[in-house]
Amino acid sequence: MLIGAKPAEIIFTSCGTEANNWAIRGLLAAHKRKGSHLVISAIEHPSIGLVARRLELEAGVRVSILPADREGLIAPASLRDVITPETVLVSVMLANGEVGTIEPVAELAAIAHEHGALFHTDAVAAAGYLPLDVKALKVDALSLAANTFGGPAGAAALYLREGVRILPLLEGGGQETGARSGTEALPAIVGMGTAAELARQRIQGTGPAAAPPHLSSPRRTIGVVGSGQVGASAPRHPSPNFIERLAQLRDQLCDGLKQRIERIRFNGSWTSRLPHNLHVCFDGLESEALILGLDQAGIAAGLGSACNSKAMRPSAVLKAMGLNDEQAKGAVVFTLGWQTTEAEISQALEIIPGVIARLRRVIALTARESNDVR
Amino acid sequence: MLIGAKPAEIIFTSCGTEANNWAIRGLLAAHKRKGSHLVISAIEHPSIGLVARRLELEAGVRVSILPADREGLIAPASLRDVITPETVLVSVMLANGEVGTIEPVAELAAIAHEHGALFHTDAVAAAGYLPLDVKALKVDALSLAANTFGGPAGAAALYLREGVRILPLLEGGGQETGARSGTEALPAIVGMGTAAELARQRIQGTGPAAAPPHLSSPRRTIGVVGSGQVGASAPRHPSPNFIERLAQLRDQLCDGLKQRIERIRFNGSWTSRLPHNLHVCFDGLESEALILGLDQAGIAAGLGSACNSKAMRPSAVLKAMGLNDEQAKGAVVFTLGWQTTEAEISQALEIIPGVIARLRRVIALTARESNDVR
Repeated sequence: MLIGAKPAEIIFTSCGTEANNWAIRGLLAAHKRKGSHLVISAIEHPSIGLVARRLELEAGVRVSILPADREGLIAPASLRDVITPETVLVSVMLANGEVGTIEPVAELAAIAHEHGALFHTDAVAAAGYLPLDVKALKVDALSLAANTFGGPAGAAALYLREGVRILPLLEGGGQETGARSGTEALPAIVGMGTAAELARQRIQGTGPAAAPPHLSSPRRTIGVVGSGQVGASAPRHPSPNFIERLAQLRDQLCDGLKQRIERIRFNGSWTSRLPHNLHVCFDGLESEALILGLDQAGIAAGLGSACNSKAMRPSAVLKAMGLNDEQAKGAVVFTLGWQTTEAEISQALEIIPGVIARLRRVIALTARESNDVR
Repeated sequence: MLIGAKPAEIIFTSCGTEANNWAIRGLLAAHKRKGSHLVISAIEHPSIGLVARRLELEAGVRVSILPADREGLIAPASLRDVITPETVLVSVMLANGEVGTIEPVAELAAIAHEHGALFHTDAVAAAGYLPLDVKALKVDALSLAANTFGGPAGAAALYLREGVRILPLLEGGGQETGARSGTEALPAIVGMGTAAELARQRIQGTGPAAAPPHLSSPRRTIGVVGSGQVGASAPRHPSPNFIERLAQLRDQLCDGLKQRIERIRFNGSWTSRLPHNLHVCFDGLESEALILGLDQAGIAAGLGSACNSKAMRPSAVLKAMGLNDEQAKGAVVFTLGWQTTEAEISQALEIIPGVIARLRRVIALTARESNDVR
């Protein structure tokens, strides 16, 4: 499996949001006797943050929120400061899909376990782009969603370490041994299984998708899957460079933008970072205009995490990292896929500077005109 | 649409269980000020019944359970007996998928509204096999699942009448205007839309699936969908006999079994019944052996509602209808599909009596042997 779990430790859900909601609610409900203290980080996805808030308001759960530093990192020392014998659950994401920072999850989980607390991690943004091993991470629960590693929307999963008790979120006919009732979304689940196997092969360098860049357009990759060449008979050429290659392409994009565009800032950690994420702030511009302008030019950029709603507000993650509204303005995320080629990076570097220059001209003109009117 | 709703009144969920769980939890939570009294029936699906029980135990909700009569009917008078000004929600299923009985939902909803309570109905078993109109039924909320009317597993919906407040069950990125967060299962949702349109055409007699039986194998139906012939250009031959035809085939099966098999009982109402459901008890046999024996002979029969887990316990629905364990033994459900043909019914009538006779011989032999041993 993609994360080193046993089949019985995987329970399928309909989306990452359900997996996250369930982990928080279900683990707290099943361990009420220990206490009702929950620890999360300040940069969790809303499917963790909003549920924590709801439990605080309605169920008397005490919630501690670990701060993020300017790079989006959660310090293990901050967990030591707040954890108590009443702490039931600590939930810190494996990596932030917006700013790309990878959190020190193994270290945080060890601290949680020292105090008899469970540890959950939201791995939705990381799965498919990092080698993941639940045993090495020592987590008790972990959320995954198929659509972030090439599978279909409609299938996700909660990994639950053998022996960890949880109460169901959905109750009914008793499917998944009672843990998650509801008719299983079999077509999407099958798709998730195939996508997980392909992602594992890419990461371990044993699959066909480790082909040279010029062969790995999305169409070509899908063709290979459909033609049944995946599996034992696939060429096994060890190439541990899938993640390195992505990081190189990402760095190429970063360096190229730096050279070509003024007043540009990059966010997140550079020592602990997802290989396919580049988070940029273009001074003087609004994220909305940027995303629309880039889209018109054929570049798909995002505002925050891919699975967040489309609301155009200043990012809560950037605020938690200490950026003020002015600093958080003009933020966009560029996310590479495993199919991204060097040619596409070059093309992006030809297009993006022109878009930024045009948008900045428009802003400058508008500012002058409104000055003229005054 | 299949149920006469506006698009904005439909919120997609991952399964009928989620829609039912959400209706109960979300409507009660959003109307706490009115009170905390919930009324359900004794024959609801576990995705209603278990949630009601959980709310009773953990959230101090008072739950009243309306009894079913021997035919599985819920009497409107029983609702009048228990409803109070504190009643927030009444939830009674449109039809019971196990015994086939259709409930007097419009009448029950009217009583709920007289007392300012909301009315929800679980229409999962009925959708696709009854003409449904949320305006005529006067319900405030209604659950649907794609896989019961020919769509894919992984898509379901809650109809919520315009203006009815509900709290979310899944919280996160704010999809579906905040009512149901989580990445939408788009492939399954698209499939649900097509299946709903085809089901509507079948029921209204305007679609190609109203073709003569020999043309309506599943393969053929799928072929028609794929070839793009569905829609405005499809032949519109009004044939309001889709439901009648199903009921005729069902009655043919019923009469044939009665003639060929002794000690057989049919359950559920015969005046208010789903057209495609036949619920039978074969005296002296166990449901499990029956289902396995029929399956070996090529007949797919069910134990309870299709979406219940596979546990082989005496049916809670039959118990609620007043059958004792002995009477509830040997129960199976035969469910017809819109593709079922007269030839298939004849074939079933040739196969089933032999299976029953063989099983009864085995039981008789086993009983004699255990007597011999004594």
